[in-house]
Amino acid sequence: MTMRNDIAVIGLGVMGSNLALNIADHGYKVAVYNYTADLVEKFQRETPHENAEPFTDLKAMVASLKHPRQVIIMVTAGRPVDAVIEALKPLLEKDDIILELGNSYFEDSIRRFEDLSKSGIVFIGAGVSGGAEGARHGPAIMAGGTEEAYASVGPILEAISARASDGKPCCAFMGQGGAGHYVKMVHNGIEYADMQLIAESYLLLKELGGFTNEELADIFATYQQGDLQSYLIRITSAVLREDDPEGSGSLVDMIVDAAGQKGTGKWTCINGFEVGTNLSLIDGACNARYISGKVKERETRALEKKVRQVVLPFDRKTLVRKVGHLLYAGKIAAYAQGFDLYRAASERYGFNLNLGKIAEIFRAGCIIQARFLNDITAAYTENPGLLNLVDAPFFKRKLEECLEDAREICALGISNAIPTPVMAGAITYLDALNSACVGANLIQGLRDYFGAHTFERKDKPGFVHHMWSH
Amino acid sequence: MTMRNDIAVIGLGVMGSNLALNIADHGYKVAVYNYTADLVEKFQRETPHENAEPFTDLKAMVASLKHPRQVIIMVTAGRPVDAVIEALKPLLEKDDIILELGNSYFEDSIRRFEDLSKSGIVFIGAGVSGGAEGARHGPAIMAGGTEEAYASVGPILEAISARASDGKPCCAFMGQGGAGHYVKMVHNGIEYADMQLIAESYLLLKELGGFTNEELADIFATYQQGDLQSYLIRITSAVLREDDPEGSGSLVDMIVDAAGQKGTGKWTCINGFEVGTNLSLIDGACNARYISGKVKERETRALEKKVRQVVLPFDRKTLVRKVGHLLYAGKIAAYAQGFDLYRAASERYGFNLNLGKIAEIFRAGCIIQARFLNDITAAYTENPGLLNLVDAPFFKRKLEECLEDAREICALGISNAIPTPVMAGAITYLDALNSACVGANLIQGLRDYFGAHTFERKDKPGFVHHMWSH
Repeated sequence: MTMRNDIAVIGLGVMGSNLALNIADHGYKVAVYNYTADLVEKFQRETPHENAEPFTDLKAMVASLKHPRQVIIMVTAGRPVDAVIEALKPLLEKDDIILELGNSYFEDSIRRFEDLSKSGIVFIGAGVSGGAEGARHGPAIMAGGTEEAYASVGPILEAISARASDGKPCCAFMGQGGAGHYVKMVHNGIEYADMQLIAESYLLLKELGGFTNEELADIFATYQQGDLQSYLIRITSAVLREDDPEGSGSLVDMIVDAAGQKGTGKWTCINGFEVGTNLSLIDGACNARYISGKVKERETRALEKKVRQVVLPFDRKTLVRKVGHLLYAGKIAAYAQGFDLYRAASERYGFNLNLGKIAEIFRAGCIIQARFLNDITAAYTENPGLLNLVDAPFFKRKLEECLEDAREICALGISNAIPTPVMAGAITYLDALNSACVGANLIQGLRDYFGAHTFERKDKPGFVHHMWSH
Repeated sequence: MTMRNDIAVIGLGVMGSNLALNIADHGYKVAVYNYTADLVEKFQRETPHENAEPFTDLKAMVASLKHPRQVIIMVTAGRPVDAVIEALKPLLEKDDIILELGNSYFEDSIRRFEDLSKSGIVFIGAGVSGGAEGARHGPAIMAGGTEEAYASVGPILEAISARASDGKPCCAFMGQGGAGHYVKMVHNGIEYADMQLIAESYLLLKELGGFTNEELADIFATYQQGDLQSYLIRITSAVLREDDPEGSGSLVDMIVDAAGQKGTGKWTCINGFEVGTNLSLIDGACNARYISGKVKERETRALEKKVRQVVLPFDRKTLVRKVGHLLYAGKIAAYAQGFDLYRAASERYGFNLNLGKIAEIFRAGCIIQARFLNDITAAYTENPGLLNLVDAPFFKRKLEECLEDAREICALGISNAIPTPVMAGAITYLDALNSACVGANLIQGLRDYFGAHTFERKDKPGFVHHMWSH
């Protein structure tokens, strides 16, 4: 038995198998292993590959690896990951590398990184976006750990990742310890906001414009030709165009109006409150999913609602353009908040994140891939210390073009009882960013009145308590 | 030495001293103790009381208590509480009672409750609202633990608590384990929303109506005569009327526009995401505080902002009435969300909360005390199984009266770039509650398209995955 394999993949579910095949396609020798033999057999039966060697014995698999060994773990996040690490530990040596590519919580990755570093084993936690298709043909990969360890595994990861339009791989070292999974978590939060913005645009067009699903599919296809070009807009058009295979008409009308979630959006919201930055669009998107779950309750109340007569103050073509502007302004707000969180978290957790690099690897492979991300990349490349995305000259100009239309449609939605929490969250966020007074002076007065919490005066430094006279 | 004292207070900061004096005023013999002697001396020097006996020795203090012993802990939340409990444990016996009245995190109270129950010591974690004044003359008290233990300490707690207008004490047993501190945490979250709604009303009146601070003080005094009557509205008028002691004019204009926070609002938001209910108003209030902190950033951008000419479509008197309606609708939304969280948390944590009882004890003593809480109490008394506050006949009628005006002002604020995130959060929440479609069907379509997450069909049970054709 020689040390013949370049890398191993543990966990042969859809994601693990596809990653292994992707690696094998790129000419690397990959050892594949699963805790239960059934998935190993399935892999060998359905997708055998000349560069992939199946194992049902962990020790034999590890023995087949070149030094330093590189082992990818792709199993369910949580305890299963820890169980695999425990099983691997006695088989590995100093300088061997564990790559954990599941949807792990970043604090678990920080813990594993620190724990394994004690025994000299290098831990790289990386987030992978792009679903099963991405894993097979090119995902976006966000790696955390140490820069030295990344140097040795980077070539394989970059080889299997997606390529942006300029040919650059959508894979990079994000930062220390749990930084890779952190970047992936917030990516998912932004994805929630993106999808909710699309859902609210759909509602506004449907309710204000009375468009059919076919027309809506065409509208999103038009959006796809311009600034809004992205994977999610493309598939929105596809979803709206789909017929019900059971013949009822449009499939989207047959889908129950209740959105599920798997947790990473929620994690992002919680983290935003812990770090202390405003994530109103992601919060709103999660909240909208919670409220969507109350289907029966909403339907019962809707029966009692008076039918409103929508009076559109312009033609339907203008509506389409203005909703597009609202959607674009909303997207700027969502990414401004997401990247503001990256900035704050980078300091707090010592990740030393490069915001331009993050935008760069989001450009292809992942769910939120979009033309827009080229512009964010450019903004941070031009000014790495950018305080907020809205201050970048490009986005400032775009907001000048879009914001009045956006404001108008948002107000029209509110006037017509169309629930657009995240659109409203976007406009009020952008307006707060540009306001010298947001009313917090009054809040500080109240807090000092009832709780002696003190306040700062505009004319001198330091906090004072006032003896209120009324 | 006889066992002569009815109860003890450990921790003689402002809150602890005031609670001890309040207890002593009600004829109970109270032993007072502090870990450092200075505060014991200060208490004895500044506020000696015939019913209060000072101690600098913990053992002697405990020995002075009647059986079963009742010991109040009022020290800084977190480790100090655990330190006091550890010091007390060897001195107490089975059936003795520890009452922890600080601003503790409810999961700490659950832990302490379970831990102490092993040694037979009864733990009651209670939230106290009303600040230093409330502690001295009558706070609202929300107790958790066991009903049996509450039966023995209840008389003292109820004696020192505030009274509602019907004479009922604003103190009650909320539920098992950490329920008291849980109810208090969400109370504080609601307080954040209440204050932000007031701040946004102030902004709207100021920006749309151009009122002076004196006029604004009068407007809030008018609100105080009607449905909005509450402690916070009363002191808002007082704060707006206050002159700067340094002679600059109105004090509120001299306060830096950046609101601080101490954490319980944030805890509530995080808990909302963990439990999975929509708390958009409390989230928005926390987010508004974060963004208020970026004072320099906002001021710099505001300099570049074009001056907008506000065109008010009605007279200023109408504006005042309509903003009042928006504020009231906002309040309904904030409490609907807060009480929805109580309902969900009661199930999740096994608290067995009585929502009517919670509203009842909020009626006086605490910061959010308001006429409005009588109506919430009545709504839950009439229908303890009420799904959402908006379904109660009283609030349904109120919303019919207010919602169109509220919608109009909210849209006007958005059109005029006045940042009102929580008002917009209220309207969009209320509208979502009443909408049969919120666009989640499209989100489910997208999720199934890119991640095979499946969806439910309207015409048959179960989840299906669709093979998308475009």
